[in-house]
Order: sequence, then C-alpha cells, then structure tokens
Amino acid sequence: MRVLGIDPGLRNMGWGMIDVSGTRLAHVGNGVCRSEGTDLAMRLLSLHEQLADVLARFAPDCAAVEQTFVNKDAVATLKLGHARAIALLVPAQAGLAVGEYAPNAVKKTVVGVGKAAKQQVDHMVRMQLPGVVIAGPDAADALAIAICHAHHVQSSGRWAAAMRAAQ
Amino acid sequence: MRVLGIDPGLRNMGWGMIDVSGTRLAHVGNGVCRSEGTDLAMRLLSLHEQLADVLARFAPDCAAVEQTFVNKDAVATLKLGHARAIALLVPAQAGLAVGEYAPNAVKKTVVGVGKAAKQQVDHMVRMQLPGVVIAGPDAADALAIAICHAHHVQSSGRWAAAMRAAQ
Repeated sequence: MRVLGIDPGLRNMGWGMIDVSGTRLAHVGNGVCRSEGTDLAMRLLSLHEQLADVLARFAPDCAAVEQTFVNKDAVATLKLGHARAIALLVPAQAGLAVGEYAPNAVKKTVVGVGKAAKQQVDHMVRMQLPGVVIAGPDAADALAIAICHAHHVQSSGRWAAAMRAAQ
Repeated sequence: MRVLGIDPGLRNMGWGMIDVSGTRLAHVGNGVCRSEGTDLAMRLLSLHEQLADVLARFAPDCAAVEQTFVNKDAVATLKLGHARAIALLVPAQAGLAVGEYAPNAVKKTVVGVGKAAKQQVDHMVRMQLPGVVIAGPDAADALAIAICHAHHVQSSGRWAAAMRAAQ
C-alpha cells in the first residue's frame, strides 16, 4: 500500500511517499513542488502540474493532506486555501480517497504528543524511515502526514478494504 | 472575443459567458456549478469537472475571477480560497489569461459606483444583455465580472493583442 502525504503551501508544497506493509514502513520518495509564475492562476497551474507528475510517477493508493491552521492573518489563510485546493484536487482526480488531518493529530501520531516541536517530528520521521534523505521541512511534514495516515487507516480497520481497493 | 466570468464559491460557483465585438456585448450562456460529494476533495473535483465542461462547451478566449473579500470569518475565507483556486486553475489549464477584479471594481464598472446593491448589478447586467435569462444570483455576478473584464481589456489597450492571440 503506497501512501502520499501532502503539506500544502502556495510557495512550497511538500510531498512524501511511503510504502506500508503490515507495520513496516519504507520510504519511496519526497520533495517540494515550488510554484512558478507571477500571477496566482499560473502559480496554481504550476503546482497542479508538478503534483500530478508526482502521482503519475509513483502511483500512490491513497493520499492525505494536512488541515490548515486557520489564524488571524486572513490573507495568509486565503492563500493557503488556494494551495490546499490543489493538494486535495490532484489525488481526487486520480481516483484516490483523500484523508485530512489537523497538524496536532499528525504530531500526536508520529511523536506521541500534539504539541511536539518541528525538530521532534523530523527526528521521528527519520527514525521510522531509516536512511531517508529529506528535501526540506515541507517534505518532512509531508512524510509525517503519510505516516499518520498509514497508522489511522490501519487502526480504523479500513486497511483491508483499502488494500482490496488498491489491488 | 468570448469572455468567461466566474464568481467563486464552494457550494455554488457562478459562471457567465459573453461575446464582445467592439462595444457590443452579447450573452452566450450562464449557469451555476454546484459542488457534489461529502468530503472536500470530492466537492473540489466536482466543481473542477463542471467548470472544465463549461470551458470545453463554449471555448472562451479569456477569463476573469472575482477577488475574494477577506473577512473576519477565517473558516469561510479558507473555504472560499479552496473554491477560488478551482476558478483560477481551470481557465489556466485551458491556456487562458485570467484577470482578477475586486467586487467593488466590478460594481464600479458595471453600475458606476463601487458600493452598488446586488439588485443594481443584476439590473445593469440585464440592461446590457437584453433578453438574458439568468440562472441565479451567482450567475448574475459572474456575468457582471465578464462585462467588467471586457471593459478593462478594451480600455487598457490590450484588446487588439487579445484579439490577435485568440485568432
């Protein structure tokens, strides 16, 4: 079962792909899509094309996207909403079910506490995916989201169904 | 020159298409894409498919999308950001340049004042597109955006270039 995690951002969209077999995790790939272009439509198109290319190359079976932390900076929230739409759309276009997790839920699953520091998350991702070379903080977050999704799908008993659907 | 206007919304995405020849405007079509599905990814996919179908059917030469009014309701702002990304992405995927206009700019162009009431906008859209049957408030707004874009492209001198590009 191949799981894609996506950390949405308009400037940098992190992605991380893992293979899951029972309780074993294996790193497949990770990276950061960077939006190009001057206007918003072109930047979204650029992110869409890069992310669609990732899906075409690695053919994941399911995907998960981090929920956005809504804060008081409405302009930043709006930008993140635009980026997040691309992160949700591309896997949906590939026919994948897309999970959504709050940042605290990801940290709680990967580190054990919801208020873990970024370095702790990075450390635990490296522990669970030995030898992984991570493209940057956004890619590390995306791998954490993929790990979180793998755990949740397994523990919710949806694993067998997801495995069947993927075959 | 065929112009597509889009009024983005996650539940209802209005669209309006007009033909522009010199100072003459003619109505081509209008409607509302309604998002279907229970989760966000499926709703965005549904909007994307419906809007892509509109572009395939009517083959506009350029497009314009209303800028989002950022308010204090961060959750609503985030949702609108998701919908707006689809409104920007679909024309960009079709190779169209996408204009963006603040709601007040649309009202100022179509009605003459930036703080015009919704009914005034609706009235002026009907005046400029005689006999038009409008699918709803979101479609009326979308037609107003298309009219606004047509005026701005003409008055900015980009008209000739856009006409050449469309041929």
